[in-house]
Amino acid sequence: MPQLIHYMLDPFSRRIRLMLGELGIEAEVIEEKPWDNPDELLLLNPAGTLPIFIEDDQTVIPGVEALADYLEETRGGSADGQRGRTLLGNTPAQRAETRRLVAWFDVKFHREVSRLILTEKVERRLAPPGKGGGPTNMNAVRAALHNIRAHLDYIGTLAEHRNWLAGDDLTQADLAAAAHLSCLDYLGDVPWGVSASAKAWYQRIKSRPSFRPLLADHIRGMPPPRIYADLDF
Amino acid sequence: MPQLIHYMLDPFSRRIRLMLGELGIEAEVIEEKPWDNPDELLLLNPAGTLPIFIEDDQTVIPGVEALADYLEETRGGSADGQRGRTLLGNTPAQRAETRRLVAWFDVKFHREVSRLILTEKVERRLAPPGKGGGPTNMNAVRAALHNIRAHLDYIGTLAEHRNWLAGDDLTQADLAAAAHLSCLDYLGDVPWGVSASAKAWYQRIKSRPSFRPLLADHIRGMPPPRIYADLDF
Repeated sequence: MPQLIHYMLDPFSRRIRLMLGELGIEAEVIEEKPWDNPDELLLLNPAGTLPIFIEDDQTVIPGVEALADYLEETRGGSADGQRGRTLLGNTPAQRAETRRLVAWFDVKFHREVSRLILTEKVERRLAPPGKGGGPTNMNAVRAALHNIRAHLDYIGTLAEHRNWLAGDDLTQADLAAAAHLSCLDYLGDVPWGVSASAKAWYQRIKSRPSFRPLLADHIRGMPPPRIYADLDF
Repeated sequence: MPQLIHYMLDPFSRRIRLMLGELGIEAEVIEEKPWDNPDELLLLNPAGTLPIFIEDDQTVIPGVEALADYLEETRGGSADGQRGRTLLGNTPAQRAETRRLVAWFDVKFHREVSRLILTEKVERRLAPPGKGGGPTNMNAVRAALHNIRAHLDYIGTLAEHRNWLAGDDLTQADLAAAAHLSCLDYLGDVPWGVSASAKAWYQRIKSRPSFRPLLADHIRGMPPPRIYADLDF
């Protein structure tokens, strides 16, 4: 069985875990704290990032940018010889819209919101000193909590005009957005009151079977708030 | 004819300009300084980034993440009904390796090197105050000039073991690497002496016809050093 090396509060790992569920891919899911064995991680992925997927024949697919398309091509709608389910879309223009929004969350939201909060509230607290651990920079957290409001508004606007964020169907855009937001939700840091339509969209995606493994996540010494796993938050 | 809105010293725009050349795509290339008309830019791309591609039917494809795959799907090796040239690779594993390296340059190299130098030496100097202009932070530049050395080593190692960076064929990995490096080369900030094999790889890609438009770039008040357009630098 293929293996997926991931970290619970890594948004890129979470997008791939959601993809596994949506596409019905079986994999042995192995948790790795990015700061625990950085040298071993670099052997599998020179960029040092998660997630990493290892096929039965030991082919290693490292990083979300390579892996998301690889899974789509080998197990999803683009797989040779079959027309399975796609999480990108059915036309070039639709796939471009999906990729635009995936980049919105993985680049812009990450830089303005999730990277700041996850670095300061998770890595600083759980990693040992010298490996990323240290005092939390509350100014960075405050900036992120300010920035997240405009992003929730944007999600809300998209959700008001479309069935899912990129159009009629659920795509990787929804999975990317939910992956980032769910990490912050684990920390109780999503002000859902900002946008009723963003909240309604998140309730829908949170109710999907693919989301259940994420809702069962539990980091020792850092339990989630009660509403994290509650579908009626 | 489709339009490509780009900025000369934007590495993401440069990757797409190289793609146009490699895939033989004709487009009207329009330069836009990102800080000049931010509101108009946001209408075309809510993320505010370049490049932006506009089809004859006014379909807008904004941002390199959406656009690179869109061009590949509509004009390249994945286009329906034809088997044109691909800049991604011919197998899922090969395409994953290409995408891994594209992310290496667009995420890691950008964060550690090119974003720092281009922000501090181009945007600070050319943009008006309040739109990004201001004094250059030389500490950021020095950090980037330190970081670039390890990246040149990595490029050199790849180039010693492979024909092109991602394998046998030229791919978007080469175009992404060359796009970032050529922006810095315009500023005279690439220490080519670090790696003879990285330099030899760059000489090969710099000699391609697709590179000529980039070598003709000239920013008023900020001319490139002589070696920028010299194939025997």
